[in-house]
Amino acid sequence: MITGKNHIGYQLLGNGTTTFQTFNPIANESNSWTCIEANSEEIEKATTLAWSAFKTYRKTSDAQRAEFLETIAIEIENLGDELINIYTKESGLPEGRAQGERGRTLGQLRAFAAMLRNGNWKGATIDEAIPDRKPLPKSGIRKTNIPLGPVAVFGASNFPLAFSTAGGDTASALAAGCPVIVKSHPMHAGVGEMVASAIVAAAKKCNMPEGVFSNLNSSGIQVGVQLVKDARIKAVGFTGSINGGRALFDLANTRKEPIPVFAEMGSINPVILCPKALENDAVKWGETYAGSITLGTGQFCTNPGLILGIKSEHLDTFCTALIEKIETIAPTAMLHPAIQKAYGQHKEKVSTQTGVEQLTKAIDAKPNYGEQSIVRVSGAEFLNNPNLHQEVFGPFSMVVECEDEAQLLRIIEGLEGQLTGTLIADQSEWNDLENIIDELQQRVGRIVFNGVPTGVEVCPAMHHGGPYPATTNSRYTSVGLHAVNRWIRPISYQDFPAELLPQELKHNYDLSAV
Amino acid sequence: MITGKNHIGYQLLGNGTTTFQTFNPIANESNSWTCIEANSEEIEKATTLAWSAFKTYRKTSDAQRAEFLETIAIEIENLGDELINIYTKESGLPEGRAQGERGRTLGQLRAFAAMLRNGNWKGATIDEAIPDRKPLPKSGIRKTNIPLGPVAVFGASNFPLAFSTAGGDTASALAAGCPVIVKSHPMHAGVGEMVASAIVAAAKKCNMPEGVFSNLNSSGIQVGVQLVKDARIKAVGFTGSINGGRALFDLANTRKEPIPVFAEMGSINPVILCPKALENDAVKWGETYAGSITLGTGQFCTNPGLILGIKSEHLDTFCTALIEKIETIAPTAMLHPAIQKAYGQHKEKVSTQTGVEQLTKAIDAKPNYGEQSIVRVSGAEFLNNPNLHQEVFGPFSMVVECEDEAQLLRIIEGLEGQLTGTLIADQSEWNDLENIIDELQQRVGRIVFNGVPTGVEVCPAMHHGGPYPATTNSRYTSVGLHAVNRWIRPISYQDFPAELLPQELKHNYDLSAV
Repeated sequence: MITGKNHIGYQLLGNGTTTFQTFNPIANESNSWTCIEANSEEIEKATTLAWSAFKTYRKTSDAQRAEFLETIAIEIENLGDELINIYTKESGLPEGRAQGERGRTLGQLRAFAAMLRNGNWKGATIDEAIPDRKPLPKSGIRKTNIPLGPVAVFGASNFPLAFSTAGGDTASALAAGCPVIVKSHPMHAGVGEMVASAIVAAAKKCNMPEGVFSNLNSSGIQVGVQLVKDARIKAVGFTGSINGGRALFDLANTRKEPIPVFAEMGSINPVILCPKALENDAVKWGETYAGSITLGTGQFCTNPGLILGIKSEHLDTFCTALIEKIETIAPTAMLHPAIQKAYGQHKEKVSTQTGVEQLTKAIDAKPNYGEQSIVRVSGAEFLNNPNLHQEVFGPFSMVVECEDEAQLLRIIEGLEGQLTGTLIADQSEWNDLENIIDELQQRVGRIVFNGVPTGVEVCPAMHHGGPYPATTNSRYTSVGLHAVNRWIRPISYQDFPAELLPQELKHNYDLSAV
Repeated sequence: MITGKNHIGYQLLGNGTTTFQTFNPIANESNSWTCIEANSEEIEKATTLAWSAFKTYRKTSDAQRAEFLETIAIEIENLGDELINIYTKESGLPEGRAQGERGRTLGQLRAFAAMLRNGNWKGATIDEAIPDRKPLPKSGIRKTNIPLGPVAVFGASNFPLAFSTAGGDTASALAAGCPVIVKSHPMHAGVGEMVASAIVAAAKKCNMPEGVFSNLNSSGIQVGVQLVKDARIKAVGFTGSINGGRALFDLANTRKEPIPVFAEMGSINPVILCPKALENDAVKWGETYAGSITLGTGQFCTNPGLILGIKSEHLDTFCTALIEKIETIAPTAMLHPAIQKAYGQHKEKVSTQTGVEQLTKAIDAKPNYGEQSIVRVSGAEFLNNPNLHQEVFGPFSMVVECEDEAQLLRIIEGLEGQLTGTLIADQSEWNDLENIIDELQQRVGRIVFNGVPTGVEVCPAMHHGGPYPATTNSRYTSVGLHAVNRWIRPISYQDFPAELLPQELKHNYDLSAV
């Protein structure tokens, strides 16, 4: 079923000479199928088709695009168990996770379809004309939003479905009216091809223009670079590392016409344990965080990598409970040997810094498995050593033992931008939180109260983003319906005849309600 | 009254060694007051104060900031006729324009104050918790927007009030909760200082933190460069040339933490004359455009610099009427000798290209006055010569005589991003406009129907922006209430106690109405 080729519009092409295989980290062997990287002509063809498709796709009705998204969901469902099978072989993630992520992916596609069917998602705004205004008449002005153009989507390694080929970036861009070219993630190119085939099947069934979607295999950076440099690409969605996201951001900004890069990058997601909450519930929170840190082998962008508390016996109790619990959890496979290797290196670098105490015992984990690791360091050491501020992607967390609240605040003030920050606090100490919340919210996209940052609900109020380097653009979310706003821009129509206005501007919305 | 010094927080400092004078283009002489460029220490002090002020300013209530903006308006009014006097001396623009622009500036400040007092401008979004949801409970998530941090505003040469010291960028950033540091435009540094003194007086009266506003004189690029490189500056507003805007954009993107630059840059604002409309009303439109092209000596970013029509006797009639009318209009002063000189050079470069026919007769204009100029060229020449696509800032326009609609469409397809595009069409030809509107709207931020692009209404439905190079970020407007969205970013609060939520998230909005 996996051909290893690229979906270029409605063709399946594989004329390139660079091939690669995906890897099964549990079996510790390469998968049997061979993938062919898209060559320069194929990338060019995908872009030409996308540009041409944009001319008609941007004019499809909201209902037509809703049907397209719903049909994609059905076609992905029709891939059946084989998709789950390939997913697990290419990621090492368990079947339950694969099924859950498929459900999320289908849910996202359907949520954007529902948005198209129901709402004033384009933010239509109407100012009526006032012809007899003095000294000058007021023109009638009506504003809506239109799609930017073809979008390049870079799939994430850690979500082969929900942040990849038909993930949130693709679903929101297609909803907006933008053709999509996916640069498939090389670690799950098989899953990528299967999902791409479902999108292509849906596009054909819904009579969408050829080129509304293409899927390009890649093993290095060339495919992405050619895509982002192409003048017909008008925006980029990316989920991955800081290095990768920043490189694309820089590349896009050196174009003659710069384009927006919405890159969701790393985060250490600080958690702040307040004294009274620890006094009451140190064991509960220790055990809860053992689960959050190891969820998905720690391979979530919202993984809690930094736990801040004030030195106390209760913080010790928290650590003990965390360690005892986390050591009962069997290590699980990481996505790929390269990710496991990087995890080991980053962990090693942090663990060997001055003053860093290793709390977890070493386990003899299987090849490619991510051995969970908790370290502890003093607030003073943390403040002094920037090497301790880096993300360690995997089931790792660092407990920072602060001298007092002032030191804790200084640490928060020194943090870079984050996707999330979490506060664990008892009601009796809520009144003391103002300074901490003030500083935390300047640095994060979402604050969680008495919970864990892992688990990102798909809903209108979700903001999955944050100040740089959590993302390259703090004003947009990559999860939830507002993700569509990345791919559209406003346009005003002044004194336009109603017949020529876009549908959503023909009638008056009640502005007082907006 | 003009000291020539810099308002650094609540101090008036002028320790720099670089001085300059503004220029009166009508009297053709330097103005008497001497301005002192802010030195490096003063810039550093302004930034330090802004960063410190942000900690409290971001926590002011909407009502407090509304009062601040209203008080700024009152303080500017209190500057009285002296402001108008200095404005005319530093710009060569007439008194009526100065008064109109002051009215617009006060209106903008009050409109943002009203927005703060009335509306859900932060886009509060609430998802209620569903504790008994299966398989997992749903957290309660509430989203609002918070200010980005200190903003650097670069005043425009051509609007000494409305797009300058207390113009739309400053008003919207202060409304958002961001301290502002203005890099004053050197051509109207006196007006800038007067308006800055009004803002400072208002800040003191309203007990705003010192540093919520500073005003820096500059004669070159150093002040702006130091500002944009400072890590405590979190966003930039700019109105001016493509070269200036792009340089700031590039500089901001090379920072460790890149920041958004909202630059509104050049535009040639194409106007499309449809055949039937010309047949009916060639003279009316010719005369109307004579007024639009010369308004403000052509120094508007929405000046119609490109007029496209299909070769016909009616297009000739249009040209004749345009020339006859425009030659009756007495030339007026440009803002500055440097602008007049650039106008002459750009006009000369375009006029001497192959196939360009000069329609207007040369006039012996006074020094610094902008002599209006209309040229004509064939569609084929225009398509072949990129030198004809450049903006000529001043009372200039180029009529392009197309062979047919296909050629006209090709010209539109080849245009760069524009602030506006205008369609002049008779009702009988509305049904033929689909292709033109399709292509035009891909390249502009606002389409005007049977009107002129000059005149930008301040209202919610106004989009003053457009694809690059009209702006560096097509998703935002620099005019109208939505301009505030440039300075804020979303943040979500998950399972937060109501007591700790921002005010606008404590109560439920009716989401069905949004």
